[in-house]
Amino acid sequence: MRIERAALAAVCLLASTLAIAADKPRARDLGVPFDGTPGPLNAITDVAGVAVGQVTLIQGEGKLVVGKGPVRTGVTAILPRGRGSLDDPVFAGAFALNGAGEMTGTTWVEESGFLEGPVMITNTHSVGAVHEGTIAWRVAQAGPDPTGYWWSNPVVAETWDGELNDINGFHVRPAHAGQALSSAKPGPVAEGSVGGGTGMVCFGFKGGIGTASRVLPAKAGGYTVGALVQCNCGRKADLRIAGAPVGREIAGSGTRDEDSGSIIIVVATDAPLLPHQLKRVARRVSMGLARDGSISGNGSGDIFIAFSTANPGAAKPTGVAALSDLPNDRMDPLFAATVQAVEEAIVNAMVGAETMKGANDVVVRALPHDELQRILKRYGRLPAP
Amino acid sequence: MRIERAALAAVCLLASTLAIAADKPRARDLGVPFDGTPGPLNAITDVAGVAVGQVTLIQGEGKLVVGKGPVRTGVTAILPRGRGSLDDPVFAGAFALNGAGEMTGTTWVEESGFLEGPVMITNTHSVGAVHEGTIAWRVAQAGPDPTGYWWSNPVVAETWDGELNDINGFHVRPAHAGQALSSAKPGPVAEGSVGGGTGMVCFGFKGGIGTASRVLPAKAGGYTVGALVQCNCGRKADLRIAGAPVGREIAGSGTRDEDSGSIIIVVATDAPLLPHQLKRVARRVSMGLARDGSISGNGSGDIFIAFSTANPGAAKPTGVAALSDLPNDRMDPLFAATVQAVEEAIVNAMVGAETMKGANDVVVRALPHDELQRILKRYGRLPAP
Amino acid sequence: MRIERAALAAVCLLASTLAIAADKPRARDLGVPFDGTPGPLNAITDVAGVAVGQVTLIQGEGKLVVGKGPVRTGVTAILPRGRGSLDDPVFAGAFALNGAGEMTGTTWVEESGFLEGPVMITNTHSVGAVHEGTIAWRVAQAGPDPTGYWWSNPVVAETWDGELNDINGFHVRPAHAGQALSSAKPGPVAEGSVGGGTGMVCFGFKGGIGTASRVLPAKAGGYTVGALVQCNCGRKADLRIAGAPVGREIAGSGTRDEDSGSIIIVVATDAPLLPHQLKRVARRVSMGLARDGSISGNGSGDIFIAFSTANPGAAKPTGVAALSDLPNDRMDPLFAATVQAVEEAIVNAMVGAETMKGANDVVVRALPHDELQRILKRYGRLPAP
Amino acid sequence: MRIERAALAAVCLLASTLAIAADKPRARDLGVPFDGTPGPLNAITDVAGVAVGQVTLIQGEGKLVVGKGPVRTGVTAILPRGRGSLDDPVFAGAFALNGAGEMTGTTWVEESGFLEGPVMITNTHSVGAVHEGTIAWRVAQAGPDPTGYWWSNPVVAETWDGELNDINGFHVRPAHAGQALSSAKPGPVAEGSVGGGTGMVCFGFKGGIGTASRVLPAKAGGYTVGALVQCNCGRKADLRIAGAPVGREIAGSGTRDEDSGSIIIVVATDAPLLPHQLKRVARRVSMGLARDGSISGNGSGDIFIAFSTANPGAAKPTGVAALSDLPNDRMDPLFAATVQAVEEAIVNAMVGAETMKGANDVVVRALPHDELQRILKRYGRLPAP
Repeated sequence: MRIERAALAAVCLLASTLAIAADKPRARDLGVPFDGTPGPLNAITDVAGVAVGQVTLIQGEGKLVVGKGPVRTGVTAILPRGRGSLDDPVFAGAFALNGAGEMTGTTWVEESGFLEGPVMITNTHSVGAVHEGTIAWRVAQAGPDPTGYWWSNPVVAETWDGELNDINGFHVRPAHAGQALSSAKPGPVAEGSVGGGTGMVCFGFKGGIGTASRVLPAKAGGYTVGALVQCNCGRKADLRIAGAPVGREIAGSGTRDEDSGSIIIVVATDAPLLPHQLKRVARRVSMGLARDGSISGNGSGDIFIAFSTANPGAAKPTGVAALSDLPNDRMDPLFAATVQAVEEAIVNAMVGAETMKGANDVVVRALPHDELQRILKRYGRLPAP
Repeated sequence: MRIERAALAAVCLLASTLAIAADKPRARDLGVPFDGTPGPLNAITDVAGVAVGQVTLIQGEGKLVVGKGPVRTGVTAILPRGRGSLDDPVFAGAFALNGAGEMTGTTWVEESGFLEGPVMITNTHSVGAVHEGTIAWRVAQAGPDPTGYWWSNPVVAETWDGELNDINGFHVRPAHAGQALSSAKPGPVAEGSVGGGTGMVCFGFKGGIGTASRVLPAKAGGYTVGALVQCNCGRKADLRIAGAPVGREIAGSGTRDEDSGSIIIVVATDAPLLPHQLKRVARRVSMGLARDGSISGNGSGDIFIAFSTANPGAAKPTGVAALSDLPNDRMDPLFAATVQAVEEAIVNAMVGAETMKGANDVVVRALPHDELQRILKRYGRLPAP
Repeated sequence: MRIERAALAAVCLLASTLAIAADKPRARDLGVPFDGTPGPLNAITDVAGVAVGQVTLIQGEGKLVVGKGPVRTGVTAILPRGRGSLDDPVFAGAFALNGAGEMTGTTWVEESGFLEGPVMITNTHSVGAVHEGTIAWRVAQAGPDPTGYWWSNPVVAETWDGELNDINGFHVRPAHAGQALSSAKPGPVAEGSVGGGTGMVCFGFKGGIGTASRVLPAKAGGYTVGALVQCNCGRKADLRIAGAPVGREIAGSGTRDEDSGSIIIVVATDAPLLPHQLKRVARRVSMGLARDGSISGNGSGDIFIAFSTANPGAAKPTGVAALSDLPNDRMDPLFAATVQAVEEAIVNAMVGAETMKGANDVVVRALPHDELQRILKRYGRLPAP
Repeated sequence: MRIERAALAAVCLLASTLAIAADKPRARDLGVPFDGTPGPLNAITDVAGVAVGQVTLIQGEGKLVVGKGPVRTGVTAILPRGRGSLDDPVFAGAFALNGAGEMTGTTWVEESGFLEGPVMITNTHSVGAVHEGTIAWRVAQAGPDPTGYWWSNPVVAETWDGELNDINGFHVRPAHAGQALSSAKPGPVAEGSVGGGTGMVCFGFKGGIGTASRVLPAKAGGYTVGALVQCNCGRKADLRIAGAPVGREIAGSGTRDEDSGSIIIVVATDAPLLPHQLKRVARRVSMGLARDGSISGNGSGDIFIAFSTANPGAAKPTGVAALSDLPNDRMDPLFAATVQAVEEAIVNAMVGAETMKGANDVVVRALPHDELQRILKRYGRLPAP
């Protein structure tokens, strides 16, 4: 392999939580109207137990030399039950709206109904390193699975950051996955160009990680739904925010002419749903994405996974498990919350990102906040001046 | 069976094409802005060869007596290659965004890649009658299938019209399916409360049948994409048209508190797509539906089928078939056209419907055209006065 | 429609249970060795609550005249919870090994995880009549569904009996479905040429309905698994019984040169399985079928459904349901039982059938019991003389 | 990470083709009867263009020390069009009979219809290393994909060798994937304990890699079907060979009490099949596996992929592709060939393996050839002495 790894030592590891500037606005702070009631953090971590860890790798500038950089990439880890995730799988369901991408481990999610560990997100060519690193971390942190075997089949997803990042340089190493996992915690989640989302492009603007949540009314069970996206999809011309054709109204061209990126979306809830019901939730993710204007282009790997933190202990291999289940007839508020949280999380990914210069001096500009507000006013979505 | 069939003789059979009033406006006539370029008819019949036939059953008023009426229902038939559909199957693919409904025959579509005959749409409890009637019509019209067998496995879909129609009265008979098929023709397609859509409710307003089409630029192949919907889904509060929250802005309540209806959507194209590519198209239908505000409620049977009229003769059982195929990398314009045509066809179903009084004097009001225009102006989607 | 229905009045309705001759041997009675321990009846009705009803239509001889006969067909109804099936859906999962056939209602089974009513099996062209008749029977017998709607989406499956039966004559009427349902009961199940299986052909010999069951050891939970098949699939040359190449060893040709029939297989269990686990069970059905030699030919609609009678009340639309679930790690005995019961049920269908003469004097011969025993001896599967 | 990599340098790299001893018998050489006509090599490489490369890693003995060994593992690479595989994808379809395992890249196979590169098989915890190594090899060997992007989403499958191998030691490195790929060639394929199959256990005996092929008669098109398995599944008690209960008849216990391994099966053909037809082929693999006695246990990752080398150039992104397609009605001989080749390839994997001692001195014994022959005689499958 022609890849030089020595350079890696110098890679700047940014603890992603440092990137949560106290005064950095989110979409809602700009007045963008969304439906539904968010949780306290308006983040996937509003679902109790969910922990997020991110490792951001940014190093070098200028001309791309494979194996040397520039590096603009990283890893995002979502642990459904924090550290308990390794010993207590969660019910889960996945859906590929357009499978032009990878989310390993979903064959077992589909078969077993369980997500056994974290969801990891990185760049396309680092799936392998993160896969190995996630297994290695588990071997180091925990014991064998409930049947006594050391058997790991991790869920690792990706989007493609080859415009800004030396993607063929394999700068994400297995240890970075472990660092993302070890740093995972509840609380606010950094958005924009962090973690796996560091080098991503969303509807032609700088994208990356975004999150949002919804809390249902008590009569609907009071459940929380949270979404986290690694947004790297869409064309500028297609971008709609709050129903307004924002992409077309902003002058200039966007990065990419085609809808050729990808978007990975993770939905968490504490509602007691069974695996087949979580697949239903995962399918609704499409509709939140569509509200922002996507047509799910041929090259866009639009892959979604939903899990429920309810029913701890459901996977233990002895006896008969006692479970709770929310009947299908009560799922509509969860479907609506999913669509709404996804719609907002994508906008948060763009609003939270700043203009970035990457490999070969390619520049991806951030969504201009003032332009966004101006357009929303024109389309009756913000009070006119 | 307690059902009285004698009453049927008097059912008023309306040739649905008569219902195409020359001056009845469609969504586009009201100024609703949509993306893309429609074909000459802005209908599924812009795809050469596609024929549509509809039988509308309207009889009786007042209190519902099972088996007597009132009757507000019908049958819509879509023939991919007109009369040639029985001898020359088309490649097809189906997708259930939310499978709370029926589209018979899709197991074979999925397995074989072919749609062997028409797509029929009716009410939920008339699937059986239309199924039998479609087979009987084939037996009467054509010969056995290419392998020499008389084997029919028709595609029959449904939505539920139990608010307005005596759905347990089984007023659709097998012969009505035959009438819809025999009357199928190219040209304009009646919209609103006709055919299978006669008794349907869409986003709280009167719905039913709607259609639209898109023509791709020559550089994208010049292909045509057409959509036909039988819209019976959605909540009033969720309705968005051209990005504006039309449902909330219109005063009063809508029929149904829940997103409990269904929507059947048929997409036709002349682009040379293989079965797995047509499934890709069918999945994009979700995104057009989402643009109009749907969250695909638990009880909403949102089932889609896409077919291609290209590659005639592909199913013949001898030799090796020579096929054409549009590469995946050229599919984006078809995806966009699908989303756009579906988005518009749904609005056409509502704009084309008139207020209807049905069983037990239930009234479902039409979407008020003037209110729609007023709201679009407020949201910057129509020129302000 | 050219079909004459008057002739129907004279169709001989055979109460299928009459056909259970006290001394009619089953496969096991002939010494065919199978793995596992059957239940008391060695039938799907060993699963408590399961009721089976069959209507057999046999009338006429000689030359086929469409609409006149000869008639060799019928309806088989399986009610998961007997009459309680309409008010209390069971968890279920379906799988199409080869979807060249029909099982209506499975889109909703997949979506909701529930089978809401019976599984009906008939001939290919009578799906419509049975669909309507099943809804009509429900309307007559029970109230609306738990959400207050009259909404029925019945599961109706089929195989093709066009060699022996006037399949284009539509001799099964909606009322026959009601009769099968009303006559459903626990206890022994008639096998061979009865109910929906009346005119069927299995591995070139006379087939039809067959059933078998397995009871797990107490340490595996003591659960029961039952299978019922409507066998109309396979080529004579492919038939293997207990591993011996029975089809090739029996002289003469079989009916059909191709594997062009179909087989519908229903699996019932009282093990507390969730919908995604029942899909796992349904996939194992393929392996039981394979043990009898099938290669699942292109034209063979090999469609399977599995349901669990555990967890009554799971579908009620209020509150949160309390469920039991057998962990995945304990499912292997259920998988083995499914494979074994299916393998035996198919052989029972053949052993239970007698030679039949049908339309145009076509004769389908029964599997000769003495030949079967002779071959099993030769292949070390029965004690040699 | 606690893993010591230094030890790797000394790992014994065995060129797997050396392992093809001229006189090593295969199942057929022992007289095991199988249906159908094999190709000249009775291997997947009978399909023109298919190349196979294997790297076998065997090092150390005695007590397991994580990261030190003992090592009993490897990598097997299947290139559909040899080196041309990177520039010219093949149509493909995949199926998971039981998804308790991993085959990365199948989401894109399902979506696009194409397999874009090799199929790689290794042990469970080395998926990541092989994933990275496969991308690195492509970057080194070839250019970007047809759209100009460097985007790799490789297909990497696995089975679990943790009894014999230090699976948590990550002894397979990315470079091993490249070596397997670079050494890939047409011709005979080593069987048994080689490549990815080095440490595998099959029906309680030593398993690993096996292969077989079938050639259709000219009237059926003369096509070739080849299968390659990495067999690590099954319980001894379930093993059937040629219909005889071989597993039970051989005294002693097998490795593993449960059907907890996995089997990866790759099917190649030169028949011109479309992606949905290749999924049909992949589903038939289940039936070949079932013939050898498997019930596809809960923990067995039984994942299959089928590809066709016909239609070169189908993926090029410009214009309209001209394709050939074998009609569905002509597929039965391919289905039969698939079932037969899979059935034989599994037996070949066992017959080709020798007893192995691995980590902690665990010994997995080979299937005794003489016992196998003795049992086949008893069951009438070999001429009695």
